[in-house]
Amino acid sequence: MRMNDFLGHFKQENMTLFTDYYELTMCASYFDNEHFDPATFDLFIRRLPEHRSYFLFAGLEDVLGYLENIKFTRAHLAYLKKQGFREDFLDYLAELRFTGDVWAVPEGTVTFPNEPLIRVTAPIIEAQLIETFLLNTVNLQTMIATKASRVVHAAKGKSVVEFGLRREHGIDAGMKVARSSYIAGCDGTSNVLAGLKYQIPVFGTMAHSFVMSYSKEIDAFRAFSKTFPNSSTLLIDTYNEIAGAEKAAKIAKELELKGFRLGGVRLDSGNLAQTSKQVREILNKEGLGYVKIFASGDLDEYRIDELLKDDAKIDAFGVGTKMGTSADHPYLDVIYKLCETTNDRGLFSPIMKLSQDKITLPGRKQVYRSKDKDGVYQKDTIALSEEVCKGDPLLIKVMEKGQITYDLPSLKEIRCITQDNLFKLPAQYKGLSNAPAYPVGLSLSLQDLIKTLTSQLMQEEIIYKP
Amino acid sequence: MRMNDFLGHFKQENMTLFTDYYELTMCASYFDNEHFDPATFDLFIRRLPEHRSYFLFAGLEDVLGYLENIKFTRAHLAYLKKQGFREDFLDYLAELRFTGDVWAVPEGTVTFPNEPLIRVTAPIIEAQLIETFLLNTVNLQTMIATKASRVVHAAKGKSVVEFGLRREHGIDAGMKVARSSYIAGCDGTSNVLAGLKYQIPVFGTMAHSFVMSYSKEIDAFRAFSKTFPNSSTLLIDTYNEIAGAEKAAKIAKELELKGFRLGGVRLDSGNLAQTSKQVREILNKEGLGYVKIFASGDLDEYRIDELLKDDAKIDAFGVGTKMGTSADHPYLDVIYKLCETTNDRGLFSPIMKLSQDKITLPGRKQVYRSKDKDGVYQKDTIALSEEVCKGDPLLIKVMEKGQITYDLPSLKEIRCITQDNLFKLPAQYKGLSNAPAYPVGLSLSLQDLIKTLTSQLMQEEIIYKP
Repeated sequence: MRMNDFLGHFKQENMTLFTDYYELTMCASYFDNEHFDPATFDLFIRRLPEHRSYFLFAGLEDVLGYLENIKFTRAHLAYLKKQGFREDFLDYLAELRFTGDVWAVPEGTVTFPNEPLIRVTAPIIEAQLIETFLLNTVNLQTMIATKASRVVHAAKGKSVVEFGLRREHGIDAGMKVARSSYIAGCDGTSNVLAGLKYQIPVFGTMAHSFVMSYSKEIDAFRAFSKTFPNSSTLLIDTYNEIAGAEKAAKIAKELELKGFRLGGVRLDSGNLAQTSKQVREILNKEGLGYVKIFASGDLDEYRIDELLKDDAKIDAFGVGTKMGTSADHPYLDVIYKLCETTNDRGLFSPIMKLSQDKITLPGRKQVYRSKDKDGVYQKDTIALSEEVCKGDPLLIKVMEKGQITYDLPSLKEIRCITQDNLFKLPAQYKGLSNAPAYPVGLSLSLQDLIKTLTSQLMQEEIIYKP
Repeated sequence: MRMNDFLGHFKQENMTLFTDYYELTMCASYFDNEHFDPATFDLFIRRLPEHRSYFLFAGLEDVLGYLENIKFTRAHLAYLKKQGFREDFLDYLAELRFTGDVWAVPEGTVTFPNEPLIRVTAPIIEAQLIETFLLNTVNLQTMIATKASRVVHAAKGKSVVEFGLRREHGIDAGMKVARSSYIAGCDGTSNVLAGLKYQIPVFGTMAHSFVMSYSKEIDAFRAFSKTFPNSSTLLIDTYNEIAGAEKAAKIAKELELKGFRLGGVRLDSGNLAQTSKQVREILNKEGLGYVKIFASGDLDEYRIDELLKDDAKIDAFGVGTKMGTSADHPYLDVIYKLCETTNDRGLFSPIMKLSQDKITLPGRKQVYRSKDKDGVYQKDTIALSEEVCKGDPLLIKVMEKGQITYDLPSLKEIRCITQDNLFKLPAQYKGLSNAPAYPVGLSLSLQDLIKTLTSQLMQEEIIYKP
C-alpha cells in the first residue's frame, strides 16, 4: 500500500479563505494605501479561566502547516471578486504566499497569561491575513490540552482515556481533542480516525445498545467475550450494576475454564464510588482481582478528584464531554495583537493599544524562564527580544521566510515535553482550584517602553478625557 | 471555471472511521455471533440545558451525506487489521455500505426533549457503526442553531452577525457554526470560507491592529475609507471611543464632500449602552443620522437583552465566542438509543433500557404536533409509528435503503422553516429564562408498552434488588 493511500485525506488542506472577512478588507486597504512594510504580531492569552493556573500550549504543528500552504485559488479569487474586491488587489492575492518569520514556544510548554506564544514578523498584509486561523487553532488545542492535563493530574496515575467524540464540536474538534489530550497525558482515545491519523492508542468497550440487543444481559456478555475472549470490558449498568457485576463474574469464571481472562467491567452511571466498591467485592470474592473496573459518565477533574477521595475502586477513567468541550470554560481569551510596525524611516517601531480596560505589551518580545538548580520553575520574565535576561528563552524560531526551520517533534516527543514541563512546575500551581498565580514579571526595559508609549498616546490620541 | 474547481474541497469526505472504537468492537461481535438482523435506533436529546426551552434541530444534511458515503478504504482496513480485528470481519467491512431507512425531522424544526429527531432502521451492524458521527453532527449544529435563535430573538429585529470564528472549536465548527446560526436567523458571518461554501452573506469591519498600524488613528480611518468610501465601518475604541467617534464624524464629513457616505462605527469594549448613546449624539449633531452603530465584544442573548432594555443606540450586533461555542452550555445531552430489535421469530420487537435513573422510550415512534386553527403549536405527542394520532407528524422519510429520498432544502429554505416554526411557537416558550415547559405527552399505547416492558425487565433482569 502506498503511503499516499494511507494518509490520503490527511493532507493539509488549503485553508487560506478560513479567515474573518475583516482581515481581507484590512488587507485590501493596506494594499490600496501601499502599506507593505513588515510588522510584528504576538499571539497570547489575556487571562486564565477560573480554576486554571497555567496553559499547556498546543496547536503549533497545524499553524505551521497552514502557513506553508497559503495560496488563493481561482475559486477563492472568483468569490472575492463577487464580494467587490478590486482586480489589482486580487492580482496581488493570486501571487501571495506567507514569507514571514515565526517564533513560538514548543507544543507541550507550560505558559501563562500575556506571554507571547507565537510571534509573527511579516509584511503586514500576510501577518494580518493569518490572524483568524492562528487564533482558532491555538484556542482549541491549548484549551483542551490544558483541561486534559488537569484531568490526568486529578487521576493520580490512573489511566485516563478521551471518550468525548460524540459531543466535541464537529469533525476537526474530534480529531484535535484526541491529539491535544494525548499530548496532555491521556493514554488514548475512542476516536478511531484519530488513532489512524496520529497513531494514538484507541480504546473502547461496549454500549448499552449491545446489551439491549440481546434478550438477556448475560447472553450479550457471553457473545461479546466470545469475540474478544481476552480483552472484553463488559458494561454492567444497563439494568442494575450489582446484578450486572454478578453476571460478569460468572462470565469471567467461564472464560477461566477456557484459559482466558475477562479484561474488565465498566460503570457508566449511578453512584460510582459506592458501586465500584460493591463491584470490586463481588469480583474479589470470586478470585477475580485481575478484572479491572473502568468508570465513565459525566467525569471531569473535579469528579475524579472526589471519587479518589471517596476511595472509589476504579482502575481507569473514560472522560468525555466535559473534557472534550472544556465545558466549564469552553474558550480561551486568546488574542493576536500588533506590537511593532515599520516607521516612516523604515525602522521597526514598537507600538501598543491603550483603551480604558486593556493594554497590550509593545515591541518584539521573548519570555525567559528562571529555574532553580533542579530545574524547577521559579518565575518568568517577559522582556524585549534584544535584551539579555536570566533564565531560558521559551520562544524559538520555527519559520524563516515562510519555510519551516523547526524539526517538528512527534506526538510522543510532545507528550514528553509536557511531562517534563508539568514535572518542573511546582505542585502549588497544579491545584484544581485556588492555585496561587505563578510569578510573571516584565523586564525593566519593557516597563520603560510601556511608560514612554503610554504618555505619547495620551498626548497624541486621547484628546477627549472622559 | 469548472464547478469542480469551485467546490473542490467541499466534497463530502469519507468519514467512515470517524467513530468510537466500541462501535467497531460491537460490530465485530455482532458479526461473530451472526447477528445481522435489522434494528431501530432513535437519536434524541434527553433534557434541555438551563435557560433553554426548545431545540432548533440542525445537522441533517451532513448526516445524510455521511451515510451515503460510508465505505471502509484499504487504509482503514489495514489499520483495523493492526488493531487485531479478524480477517473475516474485515472482509465483511470491505463490502459494507449503509443500506438502512432513515426518518428525521427537517432542519429548522423546533423540537423538545425525548422526541426522536432521527430514526434509523438498518441491519444492526450498520445502525451501530454510525452512532458517533450522527451524535457529533447533531450535537454541534442543533446546539448552535438553538443558541443563535435565542440571540436573534433577544435582538428584537436588529441585525445579528456571527463573529465567533476565532474561538469556535476548530475548522469544522467554524464552518458549521456559520451555517447553523444563519439557519437560526443571523444575517451573516465573518467566516469567508463559509460565505463561499454556503453562500451566506459575509461581514467585517476593521481590527484594532489596523488602527495601530498608523501613527495616528485618523490616518487609519482615512486610509480605510479611501478603499471603501461607501461602506466603511470604523472601529473607534482603540484609544478612546469618544475621541474616536469625533474623528469618525470628521471622516464622514470629508466623505460627504466627495459624494460618499460612511457606513458605520463599531464599538468593541467598554460600557456599550452608555457609550452608544454618546456616540449617537456626536454623530447626530453632525447630521450623520445615517451612520450606523455596530457593537461587538462579549455579547450573547442576555447581554443584548440588557443593552436594549438600557435603550442602547445600537443598530447591529456582532456576536462571537459565546454564541459560537454555546458558552453557557457547550453540549447537548444528545443520545442514540436502540428501541427495537428483531426477535427470535424474525419480527420487530420494541425494547427499552431501564437503569436506576434513566429510561428510554421503546418501539418505532413518531411525534405528532397539535396546532390551533391559526397553526400555533399547542402540544406534542410521542406515539408509536403505527398509531393514528391527532396533529401533524414531525418525522418524514429522508432515506430508503441507503439512498436519500428527500429533496434537501436550500439553506434559505431551512431559514424559512425556522422562521415559520419560531413564529408558531407561543411567545411564553421563547423567553430567555424561566420559560414554562412546552407540553410533550406520550400516547396511551406508548405508555402501555412502557409498563409492559418495565414489568418484564424487572422479572427477567433485575435479580438483585438494591
